[in-house]
Order: sequence, then structure tokens, then C-alpha cells
Amino acid sequence: MQSRIQKILDAARGRISADAVFRNSRIFNPFTCTWEEGSLAVKDGLVLGIGDYAGKKEYDLAGLYIVPGLIDAHAHIESSLLAPREYARLAATHGTTTVVADPHEIANVAGAEGLKFMLAESAGADIDILYMLPSCVPATPLDVGGAVLEAADLAPFTGCKGVIGLGEMMNVPGVLAGDPAIQEKLALFTLRDGHAPLLSGKDLNAYILAGFQSDHECTTRAEACEKLKKGMYIFIREGSIEQNIEELISIVTPATVSRCCFATDDCHADLLVGEGHIDRCIRKAVACGITPELAIRMATLSAAERFGLPDRGALVPGRRADFCVIDSPYRFVVHQVFRSGIPLVQGEFLEPAAPPSSFRCRMPSAEEIAIKGSGSARVIGLVPHQIITESLTRAVVGKDVPDLSRDILKVVVCNRYGNDAVGVGLVHGFGFEHGAVASSISHDAHNLVAVGTGDAAILSAIGEVIRSGGAMAAVIDQEKAVLPLSCAGLMSSLPFPLVAGQQEKLAEMTGRMGGIADPFMYLSFLSLTVIPVLRITDRGVFDTELFRDVPLFVKEE
Amino acid sequence: MQSRIQKILDAARGRISADAVFRNSRIFNPFTCTWEEGSLAVKDGLVLGIGDYAGKKEYDLAGLYIVPGLIDAHAHIESSLLAPREYARLAATHGTTTVVADPHEIANVAGAEGLKFMLAESAGADIDILYMLPSCVPATPLDVGGAVLEAADLAPFTGCKGVIGLGEMMNVPGVLAGDPAIQEKLALFTLRDGHAPLLSGKDLNAYILAGFQSDHECTTRAEACEKLKKGMYIFIREGSIEQNIEELISIVTPATVSRCCFATDDCHADLLVGEGHIDRCIRKAVACGITPELAIRMATLSAAERFGLPDRGALVPGRRADFCVIDSPYRFVVHQVFRSGIPLVQGEFLEPAAPPSSFRCRMPSAEEIAIKGSGSARVIGLVPHQIITESLTRAVVGKDVPDLSRDILKVVVCNRYGNDAVGVGLVHGFGFEHGAVASSISHDAHNLVAVGTGDAAILSAIGEVIRSGGAMAAVIDQEKAVLPLSCAGLMSSLPFPLVAGQQEKLAEMTGRMGGIADPFMYLSFLSLTVIPVLRITDRGVFDTELFRDVPLFVKEE
Repeated sequence: MQSRIQKILDAARGRISADAVFRNSRIFNPFTCTWEEGSLAVKDGLVLGIGDYAGKKEYDLAGLYIVPGLIDAHAHIESSLLAPREYARLAATHGTTTVVADPHEIANVAGAEGLKFMLAESAGADIDILYMLPSCVPATPLDVGGAVLEAADLAPFTGCKGVIGLGEMMNVPGVLAGDPAIQEKLALFTLRDGHAPLLSGKDLNAYILAGFQSDHECTTRAEACEKLKKGMYIFIREGSIEQNIEELISIVTPATVSRCCFATDDCHADLLVGEGHIDRCIRKAVACGITPELAIRMATLSAAERFGLPDRGALVPGRRADFCVIDSPYRFVVHQVFRSGIPLVQGEFLEPAAPPSSFRCRMPSAEEIAIKGSGSARVIGLVPHQIITESLTRAVVGKDVPDLSRDILKVVVCNRYGNDAVGVGLVHGFGFEHGAVASSISHDAHNLVAVGTGDAAILSAIGEVIRSGGAMAAVIDQEKAVLPLSCAGLMSSLPFPLVAGQQEKLAEMTGRMGGIADPFMYLSFLSLTVIPVLRITDRGVFDTELFRDVPLFVKEE
Repeated sequence: MQSRIQKILDAARGRISADAVFRNSRIFNPFTCTWEEGSLAVKDGLVLGIGDYAGKKEYDLAGLYIVPGLIDAHAHIESSLLAPREYARLAATHGTTTVVADPHEIANVAGAEGLKFMLAESAGADIDILYMLPSCVPATPLDVGGAVLEAADLAPFTGCKGVIGLGEMMNVPGVLAGDPAIQEKLALFTLRDGHAPLLSGKDLNAYILAGFQSDHECTTRAEACEKLKKGMYIFIREGSIEQNIEELISIVTPATVSRCCFATDDCHADLLVGEGHIDRCIRKAVACGITPELAIRMATLSAAERFGLPDRGALVPGRRADFCVIDSPYRFVVHQVFRSGIPLVQGEFLEPAAPPSSFRCRMPSAEEIAIKGSGSARVIGLVPHQIITESLTRAVVGKDVPDLSRDILKVVVCNRYGNDAVGVGLVHGFGFEHGAVASSISHDAHNLVAVGTGDAAILSAIGEVIRSGGAMAAVIDQEKAVLPLSCAGLMSSLPFPLVAGQQEKLAEMTGRMGGIADPFMYLSFLSLTVIPVLRITDRGVFDTELFRDVPLFVKEE
């Protein structure tokens, strides 16, 4: 009996039929950044080659274009609000076949159990989900959530299928100081993603020397150029919040394209449904002036090379026959997706397994969220389109806040890890005229956070989140919209169309509240103690410049 | 006490002094193919970065150019006639700091012991010698020399320092047939170099699908383009014999340069001394029309990426401070070489350790090399500048050959593995008028081979080779020139200037013999039973088209 390898070699040589042949198309070649006319032959899920092949099954692609499966170099699946399998179902429709993901959020709330959940839920998904393990859990010593992951905790995962490296190292001071705990994590993997926003000059030299090979945090062209020249792979990010293609894409030239990739980082389900995934990045990059060929090279071979994945990124002999059929390089609308040479039939929706139990939040009492006293109070000031905040001071009387006339709303944080702590503060900038919002997504510890125009509305919204075991909730009077996030309080267990639909409903309600667009985004960063200036935790107000908890009132009267 | 990593990070941050700073130079950046002005700082042998650094030692480079250490993607050290350490001493002077070598020749004569010899002799050399293990020992079942290396014989070397992959797979028919013995060798390594001269179309698809990632055998632009497009790294070769840069260099563009490297393959000591190593390839490539920046990218980062060597190929933070100082990108004359940031002081000459004993050749008698009988005889016909031969037929009388009037010389092959076999044949094309040549370099089995104008001269030349335990010898009457090759009959144990000098002496003598230039090259291929048409082995005449031994006389009278 012929061995499998003999058969596939015979098929490549044209001595026996291929499983499938794709005729009448132009096939992207990332090695030369050109298009080849010809018939693509596939057997056993692998590309045999382009040539005059005969297949048991033949497809006429009517002059359309074939592109290797798209690769996302860095994403947090949790940010999509979808569980991994559902994220994969959605991303696959856009021609993505591989996502390199960092399960940073779930690791912060559920530690190693969270990682196991993600790995288990990724098995057999519609795309390959490869994991870079989270390097910073907690993000800082002040941001302890549900877990601390040291090198010893990560080590058991190093041999796991789908685990390929160490995720974005955000602890820049620790790296520069030669922190031994970071050194231990570095020693576990040879692939290591960096995260060094605005770092430059000698400190950037030291960071790179420590062993980090990529960066997806560049926001200016100069920053990206410096990092590229210093040997970092540049992942140009285009997510729901951070959108860097327009500023950065001009760094990509034929000479540099092999070192540049795309990353979606944080993309919500609604954006993925409405605008796409890496296909959207390609369209945006082309709209911003690079050739489709360079953009597609970034999204295919460059990412495969960066992550040492010789089995994908190009449709050449021996590589996986994962590809998408697009209408034209310039429009880049994905018509059909093939995985292992077989038309992708979207997998059935499967409810995720029960996730690690990590949402243990108690309902606060009205008393607990009341503000007593009066005087000159610290107020967190939102900065539109930014995650930094300002430290404002306003004269307030506790019983009179929220004070809609001055846009001083109340913000409440409830500990979700069972210690019952409740922190209360004030925030300016939401501009709500009605209702309240609450969410169990609150970087990086992901305690429950709520902002509202009145205590009753706040408690109502908090109640909805707790009832769902984690959720995003909006409340106006008796009207409620809730997107349950029953997977660790971060991800929904619903199918993506329902999630995107519920996001729309939430947006519609927050729109009616008046005020700032996308309030859940600002809400999710209010507790981020690593970004200046004023923050709120389950302990109360936190000043990042003083790097300590501070009282609500600067001076009580 | 500060850890080493803390100190080097502090140095990168400019908080403590670097070991050395190189000022006033332009430094090549292979990521962008541009030159950067600035001071290069080094500590503990690693690049800290380019910037305003202070060093314990400071070098003023007076406006010269710094280039990362050059990398040879594929070489047979044995072909240089130098032992590894001596090869390294010589290559280092030309700015080469890494050679990826395939010890194919010594493996054919001495098997695993030969590999051990090469590894031991490479330790502590002036350059890094990394080995791709020979995949085809013997080259074919008909070419058995001193060893057969199966996967089980190679396996013990997989963990050895300096062993990085599987060398050029020449057994194309075996690969295409799915030969299980080849599959076993493939399974040992993820890095696998190919060798597929003129292979194209579907058979090339099958060869690549089998797992071979590179090719250094392209001789036409079309061949190189096809292999490049199909995902092979293209090593553009420029050796003593095969010189492909002029034909192939136009495939190198900014979009393809990351997949193209240089390889010297087979370079004799005299060429290395007189014209250089990879520096010579760069000069030639630039003379043939590509930019110096693309040529240098090929010779540095592209090769480092191909072989998965993230510690070299660029002078960016954390990589090895191996570099050369050149006068200008266009002239590319290497002025000085630094290894680990320290000026390279050429190592002392060290005589190689006693190599594996693999030259057991008996002196043939006059009777044994006599040709008896007469009739229509097969005569090997040389083809100038090619390694193929023609099958000629000439009427000869045994006792009257060699017959200088018709340029029919005698060729003798003596088994070197102790079985005492002697094969005798006739060859046309050397055109000698005097003397004889003999050599223990005779691909791939490396038996002793001699060609001459008379039996006495032939025996004298053979005697010289045997006396030296392997050698290249030229004899004219009583005058003799001998380059002893005491390392397995393939390499000299002498310092490179003596080897190059002795090569010159041999060339001078063969020049005086009249006839074809570089006769030792043709001599070394006369036994190559894999290349058409007529060959000579220790069993006698061999016809590659019939694929069997044939009698000297087609028809004896």
C-alpha cells in the first residue's frame, strides 16, 4: 500500500488526481508580491502547486483572486465580547484563518483556569487560534484581579498545542530594571511580543535587548520607524478604539514589508460584523495609499514568518490550503473562504463550556454608594477619544451628587472576587442626562464598574450585571438593555449576531442618555491604574501620579 | 551584586559605560536597507544600540562604513582544501563571521567520524561554523565511498552544538518517490536545504512539498524565479567553479531580497586568498547591477532569517556585535573585522588534530595499469567548462596509449578504502604534452584518480599522493609539486598561505603540461557516476546512461 506521503507526492507530480483544483483565478504570491495565473491544486489539505492539474473536484473561480488565509498578529479575543469559537466563526467569514491571541483579560480574572478555558474553547474552531501567553498578570502590582501568573504558572502551558510564545510585555519598568521574575518568563519562550508605547532611544534599546521582538503600540510614524530600524516587527493596529493604519502605513515599503503585519488588538463584535477583520485592515491600508500587494503580504507571509509558521502564509507546495477568494485586490471583498482546500461551512453555534467561575460580586446597598459630607472633591475628568483622564476639583455636596447641571456623575466599583469592597467616586465628561451604565469589563482587574445619573439607576444597572454573572447593562428608568457576559464576565456565551444586536441595543440606549459616544469604552478604562491621572478602584479614588489611594474630598467642609 | 542582565540593560540605557563605542561611521541597517549615522555601542559582545553612548574604549572610524558580519549560506569547507579552523582564519579576514557548511565530502570518506572531526575542529574558530548534516552519503548507491549515513547515524548529532539542519538533498528521485529512508532524515530537522538543479514544474512542486526550503543550484534566471515563487530561499552561488551571480542577480529586488542569500559552495583556498569570500560576492553582485544595500541585506539579515539565527544579521540591540568596517558600499573593501565588538586578531595557526584515518590506498603495479588488447575503445571526452562528459569511441592499441598525438590519455582510479581495486580507462580533452596529475579528491567517493601522458609519470604521481596520505600531485619527469591533503585526503593540515602557494605551484606545473586549464577540477569529476555520460571508477569504465560498468573495449580485435 502506498504511504500517504507517496500519494501526495504523486499528486504533486500530476500522476494521480488532486482532491480539488481551482481554475480561472489569479493567485497572490507573497514571495514576489505578484499575482500568478493558473490552477491551484490541493490534496489532503495541502497545496500541491499551481499548474496544469486535474482534480476530483474542480472549481471555476471566474477570474476572481485567491489570497492566502489572513493572519491577525495580535488580538485579544475577549475584547470581541465573543467566546473563542464564536469569534472564530465570525473572523473566518472575513478570510482570516489564523489569529495570534493573547488571553490577557481572562487570565487577569481567572488565571490558569482562564487560559485552559480559552485553549479548550479554541480546539476545532473555524480558524486557528494560536496563543501568546499573557506576560503581565496582574498588569501591575496595584491592579491585582483574580490571579497572579508567575513563570511557574505559565510553564505548564509551554508544551500545549496552540501555545507559541509570550504575549505583550507591558511591564516596561520591570524589563528595564532586569526584574528576575520577568527574566524567568522570558526564558520560557523564544517568541516574545513587546508592548512599549512611546518608548524610544536608549530605553527602547534596553527593552529590545531584553528580548522583545515586536510592537503593536506605535502611534506615530517616527515611533514605528525607530522600532522597525531597531529590529522589531511592527504590528500595525486597527481596532475598535486604537486605529493606527492611517498614521503608520507609509512605513511599509517593498524593503520593509517582511517586517510589518496587521493586528486588530481590541475589536468588538459589532465592528467585526459590520466592517470586518484583517480584510478591513487591508482595505484601510490600501485606502491610505499602499498597494494591495504590500498589504496582503503583511497579512499573510510576513505574519507567518514572524511567528515561525512555515505551514501557512503562502499558497506554495506543502503549505496549508487555507485561502480566501476576493473580488479584486483593490476592493478586497471576501467572496468565499477555503480551509484545507474545502469550502468553509460556518460551524454550528456551540454554547461555550461553563467557564471558570470568577464573578463573585455582591449587590451594594444604597448606603454603601452614598457620598457623605461635602467640600472640594476630586473628580475624574474624561478626555474625549483618549484613555487618559484629568484630575479635576469641584465643590460638591455629597447628597446632591450626581449633579447633572455640572455633569458630575457618580462612579461605583464593586469588587468581583468576593471581598465585597465598594469604591465610590465622581466623574465628569459622560454628559448623561438619564439612566446609568454598568459593566464587568473594567481593565485590568475587571471589577464591576458603574456610572449613572442617580443612585437608583446605578443600583439597577449593577443589579443587572450581577444577575447575569457579568454583563454590560444600560438602564433608563424601567427600561433595560443587557448583554450578558457569562464567560468570566468578559465574553458572551451567545452567537455573534445576537451579541452584535445587543451591542446595538446598548448603543441605542446610551445614545438616548445623551452625552459622550461609546460610554462603555470610557467606563472600561476608569479603573486602569497604570494610565494617568485620576482613577477609581474598589478601594475608592486613586491618583496615578501619587501612585496611591486618595480620599474623595481634597478638603472636607 | 548586580546581575549580568541588569548591567547590560543599564549600559543600553546609558547609565553605565559601554565596553566599546564606534564613532564617526555609517552603519548598515538591513531592516530598511539604509545607512544610519551614529555611534554603535557594545557590551559583553552584544550590540547595545546606536546613540549617544560613552565607552570604556572608543574607536574613531573616520567616516568608514560598518556592516554586520557576513554570512555564507552554503559552503563545503573541504573544497577550500583547508581544515575548518584554517578556513575560518581566512574567511574572517574577509568580513565573514558565519558559514553554514555541509561536510558532505568528509562524510563520504569517513562517515560519522568525519563529522566529529569537523565539529571538533570548528570549535573556537575565528568564525562561527554551523553545520547542515550531509543528507546523501553516499550520493547514490553506486558511489559508495567510506561510509553510509542513514537517519540513525545522523540522529546522534541532532543535539550537537553547531548542528542546525539537514544539508542539500541531492537524491531528487528518492525524494519524489517518497523514499522512507529520506523521510526519516527529514524528520530529524526542521531546517532542510535543497539541491535540485534544473528541476521545475510539477516535480519541483513535489520536491518542495517534501520539505526542502532552499536551493543553491539555480543556473538560469527562469529557474531561480520559479523556485523563489514556489517559496524556496534562493542561495545565489559564486564559487571557484560555479558562478551564478551574473545570471541570477536580477531576481533580487526590495520585495524579494529577504528570500535571497549568497553561497560560495565550493571555493578553493587560492580564490579565497586572492579574491575573497562573501565580500567578493557582494562586489560581484554590485558590479552586476544591484544596489550595495540589497547585496549586503542578502549577506546578513536574509541569511540569518533563513537559518533562524535571531542573534545576528543586524547591528541592533541584543544581537552579536560581529561586524566589518568597509571603505565604501560600492568598493566594499574590508578594512577591519570585529567579533563580539573586539578587533579580530587572526588566531594562531593550529595544526588540525589527527583526522579519521580514511586513506588506505595501495600502490598499483605497472602491470595493473597496463592496457592489453586493442580495438574500438570507449574514451571519456571532457567538455570544457562543464562537468558532463561525452562518450567517445576510438580505435586504440593498448600498448600504444597514452597517445599524445590524438590526446588520448590514460586515467587510473585506485580504491582508497583498502580493497585494492584499480580501474583503468582513457580520456580525451586534457591535452597534456608532458607529465601526469593525481589527486585524492574525486567526487563523491574520493578514490585516488590520476591522468597522465605515460605510465611512469602516472605511477609517480600516484606514489606522491599515497606517500602524503592523500594529496594533489603534479609530475613532469623528475619534477614534482605536491599539496598534501592529510586531513582525510581532502584537506591540508597546512596554513592557508602555504596551501594557496602550493596551489599556485601546481597550477604553474599543470600549465607547463599544456592543455586544458584547471585540470584538477576535471580530474575531480571524472568518477562522478551521477553526471552523464562516461565515467571511470575503481572498477573501470562506467556508462551513466546504461547505469552500469562497461568494458573499455566496445569491440576487441
